[in-house]
Amino acid sequence: MTESHKTTTADSGQPLVWDGHRLLILDQRLLPQESQYIRAEDYKTVVNAIRDLAVRGAPAIGIAAAYGVVLAAQAVVAEGKSLARNNLQQALETLEAARPTAINLAWALKRMTGLCDESQTLERFEQEAVTIHQDEIESNRRMAQHGAELIKPGSRVLTVCNTGGLATGGSGTALAVIVEAWQQKRLQEAFAAETRPWFQGARLTTWELQRAGVKHRLLVDGAVPWAMKQLAIDWVIVGADRVVANGDAANKIGTYAAALAARAHGAKTMVVIPTTTFDLETGDGTLIPIEERDPTEVTSPGGKMLAPEGTRVWNPVFDVTPAALIDALVTERGVIVNPDRDKIAQHMA
Amino acid sequence: MTESHKTTTADSGQPLVWDGHRLLILDQRLLPQESQYIRAEDYKTVVNAIRDLAVRGAPAIGIAAAYGVVLAAQAVVAEGKSLARNNLQQALETLEAARPTAINLAWALKRMTGLCDESQTLERFEQEAVTIHQDEIESNRRMAQHGAELIKPGSRVLTVCNTGGLATGGSGTALAVIVEAWQQKRLQEAFAAETRPWFQGARLTTWELQRAGVKHRLLVDGAVPWAMKQLAIDWVIVGADRVVANGDAANKIGTYAAALAARAHGAKTMVVIPTTTFDLETGDGTLIPIEERDPTEVTSPGGKMLAPEGTRVWNPVFDVTPAALIDALVTERGVIVNPDRDKIAQHMA
Repeated sequence: MTESHKTTTADSGQPLVWDGHRLLILDQRLLPQESQYIRAEDYKTVVNAIRDLAVRGAPAIGIAAAYGVVLAAQAVVAEGKSLARNNLQQALETLEAARPTAINLAWALKRMTGLCDESQTLERFEQEAVTIHQDEIESNRRMAQHGAELIKPGSRVLTVCNTGGLATGGSGTALAVIVEAWQQKRLQEAFAAETRPWFQGARLTTWELQRAGVKHRLLVDGAVPWAMKQLAIDWVIVGADRVVANGDAANKIGTYAAALAARAHGAKTMVVIPTTTFDLETGDGTLIPIEERDPTEVTSPGGKMLAPEGTRVWNPVFDVTPAALIDALVTERGVIVNPDRDKIAQHMA
Repeated sequence: MTESHKTTTADSGQPLVWDGHRLLILDQRLLPQESQYIRAEDYKTVVNAIRDLAVRGAPAIGIAAAYGVVLAAQAVVAEGKSLARNNLQQALETLEAARPTAINLAWALKRMTGLCDESQTLERFEQEAVTIHQDEIESNRRMAQHGAELIKPGSRVLTVCNTGGLATGGSGTALAVIVEAWQQKRLQEAFAAETRPWFQGARLTTWELQRAGVKHRLLVDGAVPWAMKQLAIDWVIVGADRVVANGDAANKIGTYAAALAARAHGAKTMVVIPTTTFDLETGDGTLIPIEERDPTEVTSPGGKMLAPEGTRVWNPVFDVTPAALIDALVTERGVIVNPDRDKIAQHMA
């Protein structure tokens, strides 16, 4: 593993590389034009990378945060202190506050917090983070299989945002289903919505589909319902940042739009998530905190100010797709058709 | 009237200024950062301005084309030839082919073609183009009144693309309704969808709303259905490039998405057009030619390539909203509630 800033590790497409001492974070803001890694040697660098979207995607954020705790633990030990919770409290809180909507972040930190003890070893912290990462890879593999089985040969599918390896550290959630379905010759073509304001579809999903050899086209977000009608899309396949007890799913802004349009055109919606994305303590989607981000993400696409000075903006970066619009919820454990509170509780039992 | 390239005429916000000899075309691609006029002294400059979106909006395209014919007529007369149709045929055909979806272009050219005769005068050509322009201004004023009456005090409205003075040469279609409703104190707030791929909402609608003093916010296109739900939008108010005999309306991509979402949330959709936008010879929306534009408009927002090299794109720049999703069709003659073939025929009789 290399430690340099510009590195060929990028060719692996791995968003997160742990080298035993520090975390290399692929700076996804520069893709696909540049592949550069940020070398995180302390947890604050990880916090910044999460907050500023150098690493994004709910599962990848969780893994990055777990390694962030390991970095914080290294610093604590270097200062001659124990790994008791109060010595790590500030790191845990700062990491959790980095992004509010992705539940995997809270989940991963809870797992790491469970280790805190004055007799705990640094090796155990590292082992736990590596296990979280490895489990994600295996979980992605299974989801891809379960999801692909739902897709009939000759299908056209559409996805929003980026849910490939870049977003998870494994092969991905929704995008892994699409790649698997393509390899099983079930797909005619995939469509990627560009996903404003951050263009994850235009920059990252196209990049991953191209590398995987999946036939695809890019379209603007406003064209999604028209695509349903004109191109006869069969499935909308997306990930989620949080799925709550009744099945409501928070995901990138534009997901609700796609699910609504799918229902109006007889297409189906599949939400693909590891079970770690469930937040069963939250009853329904109205209770999910929705992150609003900086207005300049909307007014200045690609860094160039387009709107007049002083323009006010509404910039929620997630929306909530109600369970009633979700035809299939796919996890590493299998498929929940027409998900509801009871089916989800049973699935997780 | 000034003839310079950089001119303060821009402060008037007029997209088209006829100075008796040439047409000044506000280059809307540079707004809101720069106000520059293109000085068109021949019809080919007008064709390029239409094709490259320096002037856009169905009514404004029609007016520009009418002045384009006047410029062609000037050249014909300067060559000592008559204004018989065959002497103007090439100009008429080239102008008509500049954009395929906006019906006002064909309508204005048909009116100008009707004048062609070997005994015709240049003055008569100019008079006709000026009349088309003046009629549009008066028509806009009336539409604004009719549309505003439908809006209850305290309403929130959302619009797609740009339909203000920039798009028509008058006060606008849908945007004129919004400004009128604001002045009548019927609006709480207006929302502008940014309207990819050309960002007409972010660049032009915000600019016009700011100048008119209307409280407003900008949002990405994918957020429109979420806005319906979270912000309780009452009306989607849009223009159209062509409305056919059964009431189906072709308009900027994203309009169908907004109308579909409005219906799902109990909001209403108003389409505001001058009667010149009707194409009663076309039976329904499936027969409307939909312009597909260059992939770089999607892959390179603001001129900066974001997608990987070789990315394929689906870039239809219009969609068709079926009449069944239109709650009110507003023209300079009045309002058609729940438009259908019979009501439209009656309205136009």
